[in-house]
Amino acid sequence: MEKLTLVKVGGKIVEENDSLQTLLNDFMMLDGYKVLVHGGGRSATKIATRLGIESKMIDGRRVTDEDMLNVVTMVYGGLVNKKIVAALQARGVNAVGLTGADMNIIQSVKRPVKEIDYGFVGDVEKVNAQLLSLLIQQGIVPVLAPLTHDGQGNMLNTNADTIAGETAKALSSFFDVTLIYCFEKKGVLMDENQEDSVIETINRPDYEKYVAQKVIQGGMIPKIENAFQALNAGVSKVIITEASQVLKGGGTSIVL
Amino acid sequence: MEKLTLVKVGGKIVEENDSLQTLLNDFMMLDGYKVLVHGGGRSATKIATRLGIESKMIDGRRVTDEDMLNVVTMVYGGLVNKKIVAALQARGVNAVGLTGADMNIIQSVKRPVKEIDYGFVGDVEKVNAQLLSLLIQQGIVPVLAPLTHDGQGNMLNTNADTIAGETAKALSSFFDVTLIYCFEKKGVLMDENQEDSVIETINRPDYEKYVAQKVIQGGMIPKIENAFQALNAGVSKVIITEASQVLKGGGTSIVL
Repeated sequence: MEKLTLVKVGGKIVEENDSLQTLLNDFMMLDGYKVLVHGGGRSATKIATRLGIESKMIDGRRVTDEDMLNVVTMVYGGLVNKKIVAALQARGVNAVGLTGADMNIIQSVKRPVKEIDYGFVGDVEKVNAQLLSLLIQQGIVPVLAPLTHDGQGNMLNTNADTIAGETAKALSSFFDVTLIYCFEKKGVLMDENQEDSVIETINRPDYEKYVAQKVIQGGMIPKIENAFQALNAGVSKVIITEASQVLKGGGTSIVL
Repeated sequence: MEKLTLVKVGGKIVEENDSLQTLLNDFMMLDGYKVLVHGGGRSATKIATRLGIESKMIDGRRVTDEDMLNVVTMVYGGLVNKKIVAALQARGVNAVGLTGADMNIIQSVKRPVKEIDYGFVGDVEKVNAQLLSLLIQQGIVPVLAPLTHDGQGNMLNTNADTIAGETAKALSSFFDVTLIYCFEKKGVLMDENQEDSVIETINRPDYEKYVAQKVIQGGMIPKIENAFQALNAGVSKVIITEASQVLKGGGTSIVL
């Protein structure tokens, strides 16, 4: 199968013009087929504030009421997504900006209300990768916004890491997929105070050892759990790194 | 060639939920391949006002400064477009929401400044209909927002009538295209005070006669000129009518 790289970048990188341009310069140079998944939370919060809409967060997760759903639909699907698409087109990369509603790529179910009502938030149910693959094989580079739909006419706010992971899994039926999660450090660090203490490779036994030693903790745990899930579902390689390292091939490789 | 219907609807219809749902019920029932082009000016003005951004209009045309470009990119490309796409998906219509930047479908040039500087407004230069046709032949229904790009990284605000006309022309190399312009009346009226005095067919000599008689005047003149241009460029049929008439086949047919 031909190689495909799926890069997930958070809001911070795509929302500041300098870091966005640097990222896209690197992304442009990546060989083979590619997909970009982006966030945009900071812009959504900023626009919401200007519109007089309060951003409610519970444990770092956004509560998406109807007003906020409109904001994230505008900001993720319009402002951030199209800025990236236009910037890629300027680099000769034939990008297409998509949400999960477009071509029914990602259908979700509104998260059931347990203790907390997150509102219009989608838990991914199904990724339809066939048409997406067809586009990719035509040389098109999909740029995915963190939005899905419920098949009943509603857009749903959806975690960008989840979109990246689920899309990578679905595309692994068609391509040899490398999934790169960008975050604010060069990789998983052996010592959080030493920027260069990047662990090169983590397999399942390593992971369990590092968790026991509290080398790996907090938000990194679900990230790595997702990585193992993706690998189990057919993704060839998962890398966790800083956006600036994507082209250099740095970071931490998660392997089975 | 197989039949394709391209329907252009203005902002008013897609921005009010009742009229949007009615439109989409009719649009869903249209036979054959189809494309929807939408506006969204009222929503853009509303959001801009809430953001404290002034909407400047000259002779009914929007002046698009950088702030307003961000607003129309959000509102047309995100809010309005994705609402339509999700609503079509709920009806089993496999829609994809696109701007001109996506897959480089429509490249424009920023309108040259003469007496008036309209800002980030695009005059369409080139429609690339090949990938769009491929998608359509796969059963996908494109929903086009009134935005294009300049190939240098900038989105440009672009008249929805122009997008509809230029896209219809480009698609006429691949399909037998009917272009339907929806506006607030049932068709071109013989007597503007009589809602039912719709002129069924207008050819070039009729048009010239009606202009001389002032039956046709004002904003209808560029609409019909565009229609003739589209017909000359290979579009099979142009119809001017009310959104509610699209499925019924009413309205005024412009013919060569």
